[in-house]
Amino acid sequence: MPKYQDELDAVLRALADPTRRAVVERLAKSPAVVSELAAPFSMALPSLMQHLRVLENAGLVTSQKQGRVRTVSLRPGALDVLHLWLGEQRTPAERQADRLGIHVIRTDRKEH
Amino acid sequence: MPKYQDELDAVLRALADPTRRAVVERLAKSPAVVSELAAPFSMALPSLMQHLRVLENAGLVTSQKQGRVRTVSLRPGALDVLHLWLGEQRTPAERQADRLGIHVIRTDRKEH
Repeated sequence: MPKYQDELDAVLRALADPTRRAVVERLAKSPAVVSELAAPFSMALPSLMQHLRVLENAGLVTSQKQGRVRTVSLRPGALDVLHLWLGEQRTPAERQADRLGIHVIRTDRKEH
Repeated sequence: MPKYQDELDAVLRALADPTRRAVVERLAKSPAVVSELAAPFSMALPSLMQHLRVLENAGLVTSQKQGRVRTVSLRPGALDVLHLWLGEQRTPAERQADRLGIHVIRTDRKEH
């Protein structure tokens, strides 16, 4: 299944960058115009546009231009390929450990 | 939560490489000795060891040496941080689309 592996590769490479991950996190809440996406980052607009291109090429986001305003959205099902891959890696023993692991992380996050 | 973000960063960078991902896929089935892990790749052993170090630093694998034989295992709960992050990105609308998306990918894979 080369298509699945290529898609997974592109998605993981895109998400391995913290700025691109932050953009995905923002877009998971709602679509946003480019200037809104740029606001939290002290980053020149061309650099942000470059990150958006990587996300778009990985199939994670889509964008639409209306007049001068470009609105970026998370593509529905964008992360399916990663969900699927993760599901394939789970062993029965790990399913049990996962539950504890996730709980520990969540508790830790609430304390900060 | 800098610890969570650092962990996520290391895991995604480690998994963005197809060889390292193949090693994780193999180890999800069972632990393996280094020579077994090297077998499917036409790769010098030092290169494989380098990949294993990246996986170990990301907390994805652990290894134990008995005599001359090093056995590598997937760390239980290794992928929890990624499960957690993915869960946080899901919107109600996406949950619905996910179900269809995952089904489409699975059908596609069966046909090949």
